[in-house]
Amino acid sequence: MIDASKASKASAVVKYGMVGGGEGSFIGDVHRKAAAFDGKCRLVAGCFSRDYNNTLRTGKNLDIVKGRLYKDYMEMARAEAEREDGIDFVSIVTTNSTHFEVAKAFLEAGINVSCDKPLCFETGQAKELKRLAEEKGLLFLVTYAYSGYPMVEEARNIVKAGQIGEVRTVMGEYPQDWLTDLEEETDNKQAKWRTDPEIAGISNCVGDIGSHIENTVNYITGLRIKRLCARLEYIPPSRPLDTNAHVMVEYENGASGMYWSSQIAVGHENGLCIRIYGTRGSVEWVQETPNSLRVCSLGEPAKIYTRGQGYLSPQAQKLTRLPAGHPEAYYEAFANLYSKFADAIIKKSIGEDLDGNDLCFTGVAEGLNGVEFIHKCVESSSKGCVWVDVEQL
Amino acid sequence: MIDASKASKASAVVKYGMVGGGEGSFIGDVHRKAAAFDGKCRLVAGCFSRDYNNTLRTGKNLDIVKGRLYKDYMEMARAEAEREDGIDFVSIVTTNSTHFEVAKAFLEAGINVSCDKPLCFETGQAKELKRLAEEKGLLFLVTYAYSGYPMVEEARNIVKAGQIGEVRTVMGEYPQDWLTDLEEETDNKQAKWRTDPEIAGISNCVGDIGSHIENTVNYITGLRIKRLCARLEYIPPSRPLDTNAHVMVEYENGASGMYWSSQIAVGHENGLCIRIYGTRGSVEWVQETPNSLRVCSLGEPAKIYTRGQGYLSPQAQKLTRLPAGHPEAYYEAFANLYSKFADAIIKKSIGEDLDGNDLCFTGVAEGLNGVEFIHKCVESSSKGCVWVDVEQL
Amino acid sequence: MIDASKASKASAVVKYGMVGGGEGSFIGDVHRKAAAFDGKCRLVAGCFSRDYNNTLRTGKNLDIVKGRLYKDYMEMARAEAEREDGIDFVSIVTTNSTHFEVAKAFLEAGINVSCDKPLCFETGQAKELKRLAEEKGLLFLVTYAYSGYPMVEEARNIVKAGQIGEVRTVMGEYPQDWLTDLEEETDNKQAKWRTDPEIAGISNCVGDIGSHIENTVNYITGLRIKRLCARLEYIPPSRPLDTNAHVMVEYENGASGMYWSSQIAVGHENGLCIRIYGTRGSVEWVQETPNSLRVCSLGEPAKIYTRGQGYLSPQAQKLTRLPAGHPEAYYEAFANLYSKFADAIIKKSIGEDLDGNDLCFTGVAEGLNGVEFIHKCVESSSKGCVWVDVEQL
Amino acid sequence: MIDASKASKASAVVKYGMVGGGEGSFIGDVHRKAAAFDGKCRLVAGCFSRDYNNTLRTGKNLDIVKGRLYKDYMEMARAEAEREDGIDFVSIVTTNSTHFEVAKAFLEAGINVSCDKPLCFETGQAKELKRLAEEKGLLFLVTYAYSGYPMVEEARNIVKAGQIGEVRTVMGEYPQDWLTDLEEETDNKQAKWRTDPEIAGISNCVGDIGSHIENTVNYITGLRIKRLCARLEYIPPSRPLDTNAHVMVEYENGASGMYWSSQIAVGHENGLCIRIYGTRGSVEWVQETPNSLRVCSLGEPAKIYTRGQGYLSPQAQKLTRLPAGHPEAYYEAFANLYSKFADAIIKKSIGEDLDGNDLCFTGVAEGLNGVEFIHKCVESSSKGCVWVDVEQL
Repeated sequence: MIDASKASKASAVVKYGMVGGGEGSFIGDVHRKAAAFDGKCRLVAGCFSRDYNNTLRTGKNLDIVKGRLYKDYMEMARAEAEREDGIDFVSIVTTNSTHFEVAKAFLEAGINVSCDKPLCFETGQAKELKRLAEEKGLLFLVTYAYSGYPMVEEARNIVKAGQIGEVRTVMGEYPQDWLTDLEEETDNKQAKWRTDPEIAGISNCVGDIGSHIENTVNYITGLRIKRLCARLEYIPPSRPLDTNAHVMVEYENGASGMYWSSQIAVGHENGLCIRIYGTRGSVEWVQETPNSLRVCSLGEPAKIYTRGQGYLSPQAQKLTRLPAGHPEAYYEAFANLYSKFADAIIKKSIGEDLDGNDLCFTGVAEGLNGVEFIHKCVESSSKGCVWVDVEQL
Repeated sequence: MIDASKASKASAVVKYGMVGGGEGSFIGDVHRKAAAFDGKCRLVAGCFSRDYNNTLRTGKNLDIVKGRLYKDYMEMARAEAEREDGIDFVSIVTTNSTHFEVAKAFLEAGINVSCDKPLCFETGQAKELKRLAEEKGLLFLVTYAYSGYPMVEEARNIVKAGQIGEVRTVMGEYPQDWLTDLEEETDNKQAKWRTDPEIAGISNCVGDIGSHIENTVNYITGLRIKRLCARLEYIPPSRPLDTNAHVMVEYENGASGMYWSSQIAVGHENGLCIRIYGTRGSVEWVQETPNSLRVCSLGEPAKIYTRGQGYLSPQAQKLTRLPAGHPEAYYEAFANLYSKFADAIIKKSIGEDLDGNDLCFTGVAEGLNGVEFIHKCVESSSKGCVWVDVEQL
Repeated sequence: MIDASKASKASAVVKYGMVGGGEGSFIGDVHRKAAAFDGKCRLVAGCFSRDYNNTLRTGKNLDIVKGRLYKDYMEMARAEAEREDGIDFVSIVTTNSTHFEVAKAFLEAGINVSCDKPLCFETGQAKELKRLAEEKGLLFLVTYAYSGYPMVEEARNIVKAGQIGEVRTVMGEYPQDWLTDLEEETDNKQAKWRTDPEIAGISNCVGDIGSHIENTVNYITGLRIKRLCARLEYIPPSRPLDTNAHVMVEYENGASGMYWSSQIAVGHENGLCIRIYGTRGSVEWVQETPNSLRVCSLGEPAKIYTRGQGYLSPQAQKLTRLPAGHPEAYYEAFANLYSKFADAIIKKSIGEDLDGNDLCFTGVAEGLNGVEFIHKCVESSSKGCVWVDVEQL
Repeated sequence: MIDASKASKASAVVKYGMVGGGEGSFIGDVHRKAAAFDGKCRLVAGCFSRDYNNTLRTGKNLDIVKGRLYKDYMEMARAEAEREDGIDFVSIVTTNSTHFEVAKAFLEAGINVSCDKPLCFETGQAKELKRLAEEKGLLFLVTYAYSGYPMVEEARNIVKAGQIGEVRTVMGEYPQDWLTDLEEETDNKQAKWRTDPEIAGISNCVGDIGSHIENTVNYITGLRIKRLCARLEYIPPSRPLDTNAHVMVEYENGASGMYWSSQIAVGHENGLCIRIYGTRGSVEWVQETPNSLRVCSLGEPAKIYTRGQGYLSPQAQKLTRLPAGHPEAYYEAFANLYSKFADAIIKKSIGEDLDGNDLCFTGVAEGLNGVEFIHKCVESSSKGCVWVDVEQL
């Protein structure tokens, strides 16, 4: 699939298709911009909607040849797998409820998968996708956007290098305020589906944003959650799904954590903030000012690390395009996910072995953990906010 | 006791004595500076130490006549009660372990009491102090410093006025890092007694700083805790008392809260931060930058209120001395506690009725709540971090 | 040139060519990413380098057909002007020294021009470009990046609406530290050409970054400079061009301003900060945290406006893609310049009249002012830092 | 005068008298609180007002014996000089217009002087005070408040230690907004006298706040101004004195500086901010958040130094009372001035030699520089904003 003649890292371009993301979709456009950003991925096929006319219109605007605009994703998986110049991966940006079936179809067709988060509804489904990907030897990306930020990468490297000692406690929070009022009763589509269990699944707040805390903390520290105690609140009570959640967690190394996610915290837009405290130091990252990282060592002045500087780890430097002080943000972070994924696909396609540095993105195993986390939060809360063990998958 | 000829609010001076606070004490000096700050309180008697020589030296430096330097607090309570010009109140700044007995002695002698926080060790003791104060008709101040800040007062007024709607959820945190290492094994006296159950009581971290979250949230919102679920961590495990604590709370109105206090959070000095989220808005106050308050209303730009401005409530304006932009800080907040207490004592002494505005400080009832909070946190944690009901005292 | 069948605003795509930006160029890639960002511009021709092989390699990577890869810009201007499907505009991203000749060539060929800033070396050249553009009725964009930020647009709208009253004084600063040491003696190419009068022109610091202050202030307030007094410093003295500059300005309405730009201000990366003070209020924007704007009204709490919110002006809302709290940054601001320019070209191509809202970008007239500003700063400084009049062009 | 039996540094108390600061004075109370703060100074005499009844009332409230309440300052100087237990220093807090005559009287009587800033109206007067103080061997403090902040002291030590290399450029600003409207036409007393040349002298904005920039920069760097170019603006024009001023300065070492002071900058309360840039690093201090200092070294992350930490210089540590994170502010900074002055007086009284560490406060020589600075700004501006030399006094 990869054009062998182009398979130098510098110039190789990966071909991909998209399921979902038709007219009216917001996130599809974000994914396409991100994939195109560094010129490593080219969109060549799509099944953008259940409505074929929507797919046709979307595809035409994107200059995709009609022959690769599909009526349904099953057909797309089959046809692209058969083409000599078929897609190298599919990007799944449908609503959560269909992630599983679509991902499964492409894995079974032997095609690498990038899937929006959360991976799927059920832990069992997630296990099946993991099993399939491993069985087929396919690459799998779950697009948790925040792990794409350079300063999150730097935090990960700082922790990995032992600079803050052993992790003792973690504070993660993700406050928003866009569901303070009953937006779902207006014509706000996002609000409608996020608060609808049929489409969003068993959780809204934890599923949508609490899961980002779990993922980002895991990405930075590598720590897995052993057990947790969660209180999910349905505010106001008429809502069928949670809009505010407090979760106490315990990690496998004995460290503790506390996660707060909220969609009713007036005055916050997208306030993801991750703070990791170790025996010797700490790191703090705030999504709304993503170009800096507060790094502390015991007994020393706090240091403000900034994106683009020469003192950063090579891994963090690699994820940046602009000189220090010229800010990069959400799109660029998202682009890093696709860039990492494309690099891994190319490397694999030319027969090289992939190591941890190549696979420094959220894969299907971490995606599975994310699904399990959501389920355990709901379980703990529904049992009266008690401690429940998290399966080590 | 109050000099009637001086009993105009403007010029009246309240006389007080102090128990504790001799040479080598840090907090005694803070209290004396605070009490002296606005010229409303004059120190005229003391039992500064169990070591009479220390009391004599301390008293001499403070220009207190020798006849009012006492060998023990019982004698002081008795003697001052008998004097025509006896003290109007006693300020108790001893270690936590003796608050109860000293406060009791002065209440029984008919003398108003200001006592450092926490009020005492046991809930039963706290109830007895409350009963005694009520029975004797005496004023009682528990010196939780942070409720003395003008912008905390403003937050309280904003919430009381309904500006943020009904409170839905609360985030309180108080991270420090001074006990990251085993400071108690050095010659750090503060570290030694804070981590010693004999002197600090059943909790270190929750008792010392978690209790400030409880008090400040209660001061701002008026909300009482109905039940809670606490995890107290002894980090490192060799320590006999907690140094890190996560507490989920539920208030009597159904709102939720989450309190984090820590003494091992590297990079934080004294990071008390209180955030109150209501149905229409929110307030946020950070102790290390105490002269401002972030105030949000749904759908509007965040507003930064600042101390000393004409748009603040009269209650907040009253607690400030300097023009806006000339910062006030910890001492001045502490001074506000003594100023409020002195005002109440004077008003009472001239026979006027005291209302809520006169009693806008932490009294013995709230002090009792504070003791109960500490006990319930320890109980919840020792039972395995389960939910426990808090007695409505 | 515009495909008439596509000439609905929604789907029309503008074709452009690029001069400069070959392999090894940083800014060329920024421009291409920016132009591609919203799908409104398609790169179809290029003369990326004086080295034709570089142009061929660059063009191939960008999927440009060989027939539209040109050996020199004169040929390109001529050929594209003759093609039925020729480019709608050219984007000039060469070094400053060639802006004039290239821009002139394309204007004479009847092609709209986007040119990197500063417009050119000499005021006379700038006047000629202005005359040519007007004579030919062509659109001209000078790509001052910072005017593309949504919150700069909001600041402009706030000032225009009279919300801060009449402007009284302005503070603009743009500190960097990348030339603190003699970087030009290392292999730092940027440092080499920026400090070389042959390529950079008569000024380095004022020409490169001081000019951004002038432009951004003008974009927000509309105010023209009447006279100025500038001190350009060559630090260290061995340098042939300025690296630090203080400029006092007087605007045509009598208001005053002070501009500081520096490349030797240790601790600053790209610290452009613009503050406008009026009789009733003020606005403050900081480039490194570009998603917010501090807005003050006399006697009220400061307000923090944030990108993506519904309370912003339609003009500012239009320049944003992501929901509030999901930051956008430098690339997206740059993309806004191309988006505005493409919109204007499309509107013009279908025969509609353009008004101020269509032309809300830095055109050739403002570009001319920018060149004059640089010259007058150098003149003032070389005369001993005295006041000089600025020609009202 | 100093009680020899008390002349150990620990317990010695310095006696002082005050001229000015009667009922209705704001600054008198600030000085008295500051002087009392650390228990080193005791107020024992006063001539608080030209109205003797005011002096009597003020003195009574301050518990000063009637015999030391004086009808005029000449009498006070004479009488206190003759007393065995006379004052060790006088604190002059009258309006600017009388500083000279009062200070002169006390110097001539052989009494150390603390005088509010600016030192006096005329350079000639200032020279005379300097000559007198030197001739009599008396200590002289000019109470520029901001040099009392611990983090300003730290900045001074950092610069002195060469940590930022040689100073290249300086940015000082001091924006306020309290004179945006014509407050002097209301009953605002401060506004009335500040804008009245009879009382405020030849400058309002530069004299009142611009002079603080000059002093604080000098305190931190030790640099003297060689020449300057100032634009003083009378906004609105009806005002007889300046309310906005831009000043370009050149220091004796060739470094440059730019000072902006304003009383019409809406949105600022008391925004003194000092930034010093050297060849290797920089320091930045902001008065409204005075407990921290931003310190940068080229190529390294910015560091945030905070008051109360063990890594600070001994000089900065000595000026703090509370643990890190418990903020100190304006009163405490002011108290540090009196504390330093009292220490010097005590040390001198017991015959010890004073060195630079003892005299680390603004003395009469620096006070003279301050007066010269104001005059030269006015001179430069009135000549059309041209460069004028500053006399090296």
